[in-house]
Amino acid sequence: MQESAPSDPRETAILLLSCKDTRGIVAEISHFIFTYDGNILHSDQHYDGETNTFFMRVEWDLVGFAIPRERIGAAFEPIALKFGMDWRLEFPSKRARIAILVSSFDHCLYELLIRNKSGELAAEIPLIIGNHATAEPIARYFEVPFHLYKLTKETKAEVEEQEIALLKESRIDLVVRARYMQILSPRFVSEFRNRIINIHHSFLPAFVGAKPYHQAHSRGVKIIGATSHYVTADLDQGPIIEQDVARITHRDSVEDLVVKGKNLEKLVLSRAVKLHLDHKVLVFGNKTVIFD
Amino acid sequence: MQESAPSDPRETAILLLSCKDTRGIVAEISHFIFTYDGNILHSDQHYDGETNTFFMRVEWDLVGFAIPRERIGAAFEPIALKFGMDWRLEFPSKRARIAILVSSFDHCLYELLIRNKSGELAAEIPLIIGNHATAEPIARYFEVPFHLYKLTKETKAEVEEQEIALLKESRIDLVVRARYMQILSPRFVSEFRNRIINIHHSFLPAFVGAKPYHQAHSRGVKIIGATSHYVTADLDQGPIIEQDVARITHRDSVEDLVVKGKNLEKLVLSRAVKLHLDHKVLVFGNKTVIFD
Amino acid sequence: MQESAPSDPRETAILLLSCKDTRGIVAEISHFIFTYDGNILHSDQHYDGETNTFFMRVEWDLVGFAIPRERIGAAFEPIALKFGMDWRLEFPSKRARIAILVSSFDHCLYELLIRNKSGELAAEIPLIIGNHATAEPIARYFEVPFHLYKLTKETKAEVEEQEIALLKESRIDLVVRARYMQILSPRFVSEFRNRIINIHHSFLPAFVGAKPYHQAHSRGVKIIGATSHYVTADLDQGPIIEQDVARITHRDSVEDLVVKGKNLEKLVLSRAVKLHLDHKVLVFGNKTVIFD
Amino acid sequence: MQESAPSDPRETAILLLSCKDTRGIVAEISHFIFTYDGNILHSDQHYDGETNTFFMRVEWDLVGFAIPRERIGAAFEPIALKFGMDWRLEFPSKRARIAILVSSFDHCLYELLIRNKSGELAAEIPLIIGNHATAEPIARYFEVPFHLYKLTKETKAEVEEQEIALLKESRIDLVVRARYMQILSPRFVSEFRNRIINIHHSFLPAFVGAKPYHQAHSRGVKIIGATSHYVTADLDQGPIIEQDVARITHRDSVEDLVVKGKNLEKLVLSRAVKLHLDHKVLVFGNKTVIFD
Repeated sequence: MQESAPSDPRETAILLLSCKDTRGIVAEISHFIFTYDGNILHSDQHYDGETNTFFMRVEWDLVGFAIPRERIGAAFEPIALKFGMDWRLEFPSKRARIAILVSSFDHCLYELLIRNKSGELAAEIPLIIGNHATAEPIARYFEVPFHLYKLTKETKAEVEEQEIALLKESRIDLVVRARYMQILSPRFVSEFRNRIINIHHSFLPAFVGAKPYHQAHSRGVKIIGATSHYVTADLDQGPIIEQDVARITHRDSVEDLVVKGKNLEKLVLSRAVKLHLDHKVLVFGNKTVIFD
Repeated sequence: MQESAPSDPRETAILLLSCKDTRGIVAEISHFIFTYDGNILHSDQHYDGETNTFFMRVEWDLVGFAIPRERIGAAFEPIALKFGMDWRLEFPSKRARIAILVSSFDHCLYELLIRNKSGELAAEIPLIIGNHATAEPIARYFEVPFHLYKLTKETKAEVEEQEIALLKESRIDLVVRARYMQILSPRFVSEFRNRIINIHHSFLPAFVGAKPYHQAHSRGVKIIGATSHYVTADLDQGPIIEQDVARITHRDSVEDLVVKGKNLEKLVLSRAVKLHLDHKVLVFGNKTVIFD
Repeated sequence: MQESAPSDPRETAILLLSCKDTRGIVAEISHFIFTYDGNILHSDQHYDGETNTFFMRVEWDLVGFAIPRERIGAAFEPIALKFGMDWRLEFPSKRARIAILVSSFDHCLYELLIRNKSGELAAEIPLIIGNHATAEPIARYFEVPFHLYKLTKETKAEVEEQEIALLKESRIDLVVRARYMQILSPRFVSEFRNRIINIHHSFLPAFVGAKPYHQAHSRGVKIIGATSHYVTADLDQGPIIEQDVARITHRDSVEDLVVKGKNLEKLVLSRAVKLHLDHKVLVFGNKTVIFD
Repeated sequence: MQESAPSDPRETAILLLSCKDTRGIVAEISHFIFTYDGNILHSDQHYDGETNTFFMRVEWDLVGFAIPRERIGAAFEPIALKFGMDWRLEFPSKRARIAILVSSFDHCLYELLIRNKSGELAAEIPLIIGNHATAEPIARYFEVPFHLYKLTKETKAEVEEQEIALLKESRIDLVVRARYMQILSPRFVSEFRNRIINIHHSFLPAFVGAKPYHQAHSRGVKIIGATSHYVTADLDQGPIIEQDVARITHRDSVEDLVVKGKNLEKLVLSRAVKLHLDHKVLVFGNKTVIFD
């Protein structure tokens, strides 16, 4: 609820949480916000019957809110403890810092950079990491520092450590694999748990692994897909954020599938990144709850 | 939130409301439910900045709720008055009573009857009204009383009064125009405000009025659509509930469009009716808020 | 090409063929048709580069065609031999005879019967075979003889022989599995090669086998699908005719997926059957060429 | 049909034609190609019953074709005259020369330039014309000369003459309006008949004219669209090449529609341009035949 005219970007807080379900959670949270003169703008919840888990996303206006930003977490802590919540607090006015990993395909990279430049993503992109130099001119045009990390089977572990160090010292919030052709080690993945987004060029779980368009062509499917998911230690098995499909026919060669697929991949990846940046995704086991 | 294992159909209450936005609405409502030991299962809200209007749909478990069903409304009234709410209270366990209006096309009629029989709609259909006898055997097969009301320009006003009387004495909650080819008078519409659902065989507002498939064919569009909306006094102008589209090509004749369109119309109308029956639609001016 | 006004149903012939690609095939076929005063209405072709195979579908008007229907095949034979064609000749005016196999789910059965009754499929349905009695009243309403064949592991081989005998003596052209829950033996399949159409309730090759909606729910996909394919000895591996998808969210339970899936299955199966009946499908290895 | 392995880009010829329908057209054309040792790769046709018009697109391999490219037209002329054909001959190996018109929105411009750079469009883009300087850095990055033509109501006629002169001397085959915000005069349009492609940001014919996203928001539609069409003297009334849609909800503000719409517009425009460049579009009155 709100009283004043909307200003953009409005100063708001977003609370994302999950806990064992019981009575009074919504009442307690909305009472907390109301008590301190908060103005609930959006509120959404979900109940998973199989595991008796309650999920919630609530966003409120900070204009006139009685608790300063940096102390909201501490003030909320008693409620979180009472219900045993897994929770986090986000502030949309704080722009996320994204690192993009890329190989030689550039369609997803372009799409992310253009959408960010137009204000659609509203993130900061302080660096691009490539294992080929192909994307370097694109990075330069969009004025993003480009870091070339070539790697071989022998140097991979060492190079990854350098990448992790760079990502950390650059305070990266989200790593986006924009058709990056290197598998990340479990060590890398564990450093950015639920903060690495991948685009797989098939409708998962169909056609896991390599060359999905060849697999799709060989099977004779009538629709191809793309899947964006968080990266976990199990390849192509992470929680799915977004999927979409495109119709094909017997006339489409593998090359045609690649072109149609590219135009699908960049859409699906961009939507997944946008959902993540808008703090609309809660990971729950191997699935996601999308509050859109 | 809930504590006990789900029983189906669960006894729940659904509160739908809109009011001028201000602080504390969610807190007050959730406090009301919690105070009487209610268990919020779903809660969704929307804020319209243009008109500063707040919309909410909240559903809670009635098992263990301290107020008996018939007195919940009275108990909630003070809160409604305080915020100047436009509100209604629904009980999903009470099956809605639907009347279907039909002419000679039977595809939408079949779809509604089959979905209801399979339990997808979970409504009661105590009567079908036709201005042709075509649908009579279908009604008989599905064991729904069929009422034939032929009408001419001269008899229309009088016949409509008989229909309204029949609908009222049958305690009809929702009137569904399943490709019914007669325009309803403003008098009829006003008797069932926001309770008559129509299917228009085009992607409104494209191709209003008669013969939309002929219009679409003549214009050479590449996609056709269907639109389900509440009926208002202005033909084809009522609040839209659901729309969908199908791709066509230059090879499709008007007859092909009619066939493709029929298969679209029955889907779109069924989805709209289902949304209405699930109490997920709030009408707001000439638009709808769909809580799905 | 044509000179007279279209009459419906027009008397036409459809030639479907594939052969090793070489020069002059189109010229020879179109010359054959022109020589005998045939009027080409539709012509479509496809070339598969991987196997150097040529595919063609050509339909011409028989009004004024100099060769009587029953002798067209013999007249065309020399051309077929010259190019080593795999070919068949179809006459749309001859209505195909369909048998529907069904268990207890009735949504696909209803859809096929309603579309046929409305003239959309334009087939004859002389019989329905069920392994449950559930569908018997539906069959009676649509005036199609219903045959109940219950079967156990022990009686399956014997019962299938009875079914095959019935299908043959009823001169069945196409067998449609409308969510029939029994696997057909290789013997049965071989009797109706490329003439048994199945609907699988997933987006193949994702979620083969049993309980695909449970699998989809468990994997957390954002889109579900349905696949209609010809039945081969390998379960769920036959040539795909048609697929489609529907969007789902984390809110959808397995039961919701089942309902959304049912409304998808009946569409996809109906489209596949229609394509087959219109002689628009050519099977090629484990794939299909769809001339639409 | 073909004998040799495919080389890319293959040297082929494409014949596009329409004429009054009569017997023997396909036979005569395929005989013509066969006689001179041509190898038909693709052939598609369409018959419009309302106007008794026959349409055809046929593509054949020029390797081994007995007539040199520059004389094929003359050799075919007698057949064209015999049937009164409206026809053209295209050679895919000749890259089309595109001029892009742009204002300050750059999403469609980026998409076209990126798709062309990746080889998907395979055109030459010798110039971009802008009425704002916004796109100048983009043009420079993609190494395309940028021409700034500011215009006022008073100077419009004169400036357009300069633009037409530039387009002609640059031998431009296709003009693409990439969200160009100036209406072209009938004089300009007549110079490039069926060779100017526009993107309109609505599902035409819904929401013609200005601010379609505002119109869509105001009407409360559940789906928005984009339409790419050839430009004619009548604004938003030209032959439609391609359309597509995106689902929206009551939560989407006009600004959200603009963002969703932008991502739709660039797809639809790119597909339309690709269809045109592949010589798959035949304009027929106010409609198109799309041979895809």
